[in-house]
Amino acid sequence: MDEQTAGGTRVDMVMATIRQRIAGRSLTPGARLPSIRKSASALKVSPSTVVDAYERLVAEGAIRSRPGSGFYVANQTAPLSLSEIGPKVDRAVDPFWVSRQSLESSDGVLKPGCGWLPPSWLPEDSIRRALRALARADGAVLADYGSPLGLPALRQFLARRMAERGIESSPDQIMLTESGTQAMDLLCRLLLEPGDTVLVDDPCYFNFQALLRAHRAKIVSVPYTPVGPDIELYGQALNEHRPRLYITNSAIHNPTGAILSPVVAHKVLKLADQFGLTIIEDDLFADFERLPAPRLSAFDGLDRVVLIGSFSKTISASVRCGFVAARPEWIEGLIDLKIATSFGGGRLGAELVLAVLSDGRYRKHMETLRSRLGSAMSDVAARLKAIAIEPWLMPEAGMLLWCRLPGDVDAADLARAAVAENVVLAPGNAFSVSQSAGNFMRFNVSQTLDDRIFEVLRRSLDRARKSGS
Amino acid sequence: MDEQTAGGTRVDMVMATIRQRIAGRSLTPGARLPSIRKSASALKVSPSTVVDAYERLVAEGAIRSRPGSGFYVANQTAPLSLSEIGPKVDRAVDPFWVSRQSLESSDGVLKPGCGWLPPSWLPEDSIRRALRALARADGAVLADYGSPLGLPALRQFLARRMAERGIESSPDQIMLTESGTQAMDLLCRLLLEPGDTVLVDDPCYFNFQALLRAHRAKIVSVPYTPVGPDIELYGQALNEHRPRLYITNSAIHNPTGAILSPVVAHKVLKLADQFGLTIIEDDLFADFERLPAPRLSAFDGLDRVVLIGSFSKTISASVRCGFVAARPEWIEGLIDLKIATSFGGGRLGAELVLAVLSDGRYRKHMETLRSRLGSAMSDVAARLKAIAIEPWLMPEAGMLLWCRLPGDVDAADLARAAVAENVVLAPGNAFSVSQSAGNFMRFNVSQTLDDRIFEVLRRSLDRARKSGS
Repeated sequence: MDEQTAGGTRVDMVMATIRQRIAGRSLTPGARLPSIRKSASALKVSPSTVVDAYERLVAEGAIRSRPGSGFYVANQTAPLSLSEIGPKVDRAVDPFWVSRQSLESSDGVLKPGCGWLPPSWLPEDSIRRALRALARADGAVLADYGSPLGLPALRQFLARRMAERGIESSPDQIMLTESGTQAMDLLCRLLLEPGDTVLVDDPCYFNFQALLRAHRAKIVSVPYTPVGPDIELYGQALNEHRPRLYITNSAIHNPTGAILSPVVAHKVLKLADQFGLTIIEDDLFADFERLPAPRLSAFDGLDRVVLIGSFSKTISASVRCGFVAARPEWIEGLIDLKIATSFGGGRLGAELVLAVLSDGRYRKHMETLRSRLGSAMSDVAARLKAIAIEPWLMPEAGMLLWCRLPGDVDAADLARAAVAENVVLAPGNAFSVSQSAGNFMRFNVSQTLDDRIFEVLRRSLDRARKSGS
Repeated sequence: MDEQTAGGTRVDMVMATIRQRIAGRSLTPGARLPSIRKSASALKVSPSTVVDAYERLVAEGAIRSRPGSGFYVANQTAPLSLSEIGPKVDRAVDPFWVSRQSLESSDGVLKPGCGWLPPSWLPEDSIRRALRALARADGAVLADYGSPLGLPALRQFLARRMAERGIESSPDQIMLTESGTQAMDLLCRLLLEPGDTVLVDDPCYFNFQALLRAHRAKIVSVPYTPVGPDIELYGQALNEHRPRLYITNSAIHNPTGAILSPVVAHKVLKLADQFGLTIIEDDLFADFERLPAPRLSAFDGLDRVVLIGSFSKTISASVRCGFVAARPEWIEGLIDLKIATSFGGGRLGAELVLAVLSDGRYRKHMETLRSRLGSAMSDVAARLKAIAIEPWLMPEAGMLLWCRLPGDVDAADLARAAVAENVVLAPGNAFSVSQSAGNFMRFNVSQTLDDRIFEVLRRSLDRARKSGS
């Protein structure tokens, strides 16, 4: 086995992985590290490489060894030197991989793996108009905190839009947040105790895992099928693990692009009732739908189901604004937690979003965008198939395409090789709690239109095949 | 004793207080409630009132009684009905009191208790210019996520400004956040385990308490003197409680307006070294200083001390932007936590703040603002003294004035009475972990210039004196 990777030795890579897990709290002080054998198999290195890495981390003080018992994270986390982390290609494919690579990439980098649209696909003109209008707004709009629930007119707009999708709610059940992610975070703060179990889909949006780790939750996953979670295994998981929460995407599932069927939605809710489960439904892709899909929150009426959303995918990720719609008796607690952890809300962000949503041109813009995404979806799927990368299903809408790589090519290897060529991919296991998606890759069709991406994919696949992986 | 308060019975008030603590996580599921006697004394009601309130909460399912052992928060938190919370005057004076009252107040309400400037005192013209300039910016600025660390030019600006104040740092040690509060929250996530002890000043900014409760930290406080924390008691607290963190305001202390002396700063750091303590220094009022005050982060060089700040007080609270400057090896972990809990940063907010800071007129604006605050400080202090409300000290700068009420007037009673007259005050115990500031009140001089405030104060004081409290 070649002990050198592109950016350093395999020992360095293992060390960097462990340091990241400690820094990112997936390994907390006092926690036991995976065994040598387990780490070796997960990171695809030899056991002696892991032994070397663990011993050097002990020398650094980051971890401690207890003879006969294994390795543990040191209680006083040892300094982690940025310079030691080395080039990005060394980064392990964990739930942060895609986000860090995408967010940190510089201008020349292509990002078929990222989860958002290119700026030119967003309603730029409406944003510019909204900024010019805001420059003439009242002083309080420009300078004061927003109210704890957030801009009333935007909450009214959201309640109306939810009603159009069959979700009954009142504006007082809706709280604005700085992002959909913050909405999820506040719900976890309200509803979870450290050590609680949370159920997610497998695969699921990688940041659900990152967030749940930050909350010290136990994560259990259920395989996702083209019509929703595998309902038998979902029932088994509820029975066996009694999770406090189930977190999922509705309408257009991330990363698969699948749409929940009404039958599965009904069963999911029936089992949730039976086991006293709360469901958080992340509806961030709602505006991309061409036909309204079944939603858990619509069937349930915001009783067991909490709905969250944001405008990062459809208006702007630069303007931060999200929301949560929950049962009325949870709103007070959510407000207190929002104030405690972020004080007021951003009034300006909410005003900008409202201005764009109320701009008559927004509906037209979304229509154009949906058909543009539809063409891109067919195009990209065809070009991927031509190099033997097969869509798991053809999504009815949205930007995401979940694909199986040819043969037994490892998506993480492919992604690391591509980063070295300035292409950020989204390898399957970043989305998989069970690490069972090593052969899958998520593509964002709006960001996969450049020929260079296919050249890099073709070259990397050829290399992977030749090296007999 | 009169069993009726302005907004309902005392039993209702006690019930609302307990519900708020449960909703705000200061009482978590399974936690033991304060004893009848303790609650009665803290809330200034008779023990039989507390017994009634606890029994009604048991009936509601919010708490459970264990015979011979006391009352406990129910594990499945019972629904909290918004309508039952009743009018605002019922709200207990807890760490959320001032923020909720200030943020929720409608247009006609006067807010001498809030912690920010009126919009007309902020650099409105610069904000309008910045918005117009942004309307012409590149599409990526308007639509894309910011980089994980945040806008490089703003981080460079902050590093230069910190250098002017004697704080050595590099832009790579600075991470932008959505607010100073979010910066503090991310640091707590990185550095605290549930149950860790944190030291704060007494009095301190009320939201430190709210935030630490959300992190399930134990809070210990040390009396604040006009030159910093009481150094003997600080040393004793470190020795006895071994806190993980000390959280404080530097430069201009909130709520007292006191300034740390170099001697105390040096001793605080020496003791921190001795006990392995990390200090978070919240420097949000930096731009209000007339002469640079000693800073823990300057003496320490960002080794044990982490500096945080924001622009909510000097530029806009509507545009969300804050920052944290920490030792380099903590930045990676902070980035991961920021992504996990709020995904990208708001690029637009950072661009707006940078545009205002780089506007040549900003420095001039701050000069005018400082002298305007100076006059308001003298004015308001004189007018308060005339009604026997005495400043604890005359602050050298800033907007905050910490005052003692005449006789044994209870600040919480006064604040509740004032809310009924559309004046939001900031009663001392909202700032005090030891609840020893019941006779104090914080005034924001920029928001205390309206005659009606003094009328309400005079009337309420008269009533309080007559009722013989």
